[in-house]
Amino acid sequence: MQPQTRKLKYHVATSLDGFIARDDDSTDCFPGDLQAENVTDYLFSLASEYDTVLMGRGTYEIGLKVGVSDPYPQMETYVFSRTLKDSPNPRVHLVHENVADVVRGLKARAGEDIDWGRVIRGAQAHAHKDIYLCGGGNLARTLFAEGLIDEVVIKLNPVLLGSGKPVVSRLPQDIPLELMSTKTYRTGIVLLRYSVKR
Amino acid sequence: MQPQTRKLKYHVATSLDGFIARDDDSTDCFPGDLQAENVTDYLFSLASEYDTVLMGRGTYEIGLKVGVSDPYPQMETYVFSRTLKDSPNPRVHLVHENVADVVRGLKARAGEDIDWGRVIRGAQAHAHKDIYLCGGGNLARTLFAEGLIDEVVIKLNPVLLGSGKPVVSRLPQDIPLELMSTKTYRTGIVLLRYSVKR
Repeated sequence: MQPQTRKLKYHVATSLDGFIARDDDSTDCFPGDLQAENVTDYLFSLASEYDTVLMGRGTYEIGLKVGVSDPYPQMETYVFSRTLKDSPNPRVHLVHENVADVVRGLKARAGEDIDWGRVIRGAQAHAHKDIYLCGGGNLARTLFAEGLIDEVVIKLNPVLLGSGKPVVSRLPQDIPLELMSTKTYRTGIVLLRYSVKR
Repeated sequence: MQPQTRKLKYHVATSLDGFIARDDDSTDCFPGDLQAENVTDYLFSLASEYDTVLMGRGTYEIGLKVGVSDPYPQMETYVFSRTLKDSPNPRVHLVHENVADVVRGLKARAGEDIDWGRVIRGAQAHAHKDIYLCGGGNLARTLFAEGLIDEVVIKLNPVLLGSGKPVVSRLPQDIPLELMSTKTYRTGIVLLRYSVKR
């Protein structure tokens, strides 16, 4: 049986006013209590929902600056950049051009089977793993413009920042969404899942 | 009995990425089916929750351009502007300076008693009416900076715009919020109520 095309999900924490980080890329505005249920849900998503991660150069370099060259060691990792020459880590694939073609290729590949042993809380609706877009706004714009993003998963933090890095840079057109689910955490974070309307 | 200080609530529709309008001030990106439950809830809030409305000049002029000089005829109306000389409508109070003092004065005044005859769906927690800040981002920034906004009520629309008028302009500091309630509508709009943490 031909595997279904995998989904690409833009899964990211934002402020209530739509920023994924401060102007200086710091994210201390999104408090990260590692015991909080929203964090365990997120770690569970990482482990069970995705086998591949995409990120822009800016997002990758946030970790790189503090010595993390392989931020998601359990996933196949792709960093998109026009300027980075060599990958700082042999596990990290650098993509310089043909972004849309590369992503189309990844979506057409069969995802890993879900490791049901890991599915300890709630069933997954899909039997294979999807692709995680973890940021930032410029790569998201490119992939939205190409119609390649299937879902948007927002961890909406209870804070207004007033400025910072936008969840998505200037778009050629609106991206209409369909709300699939919401989950409210005791931290005041609201997890919102949307599918992109075609 | 001394009346409690009234609340000032910033109650506004946004896109998922934090814009209250497009760059040209249009809001056709937030579809307005007048029969939709989110619209009737909003009209109910206007009728039952507020007796006074505050807005910046930019927000006021959106209506003024299409001939609406008194957008909320059931409320005492204040428009804040450094540049508008004369009020286009005798019901509309123009405030040129001392924004914070004027707003403090309005908050200290007793709100109208709730007209319980209007309370046809769900009880109001408060027995007097509050103050409605309907926009825009510049006035919101000024009032947040002065610590005068008590609640933030966001009608989160299922759309990404990528650019537009921000829900709040650049702030001197983060505004941490506490989530009070969420309500999800069939339109995919999520109504989020927050109190401002002091």
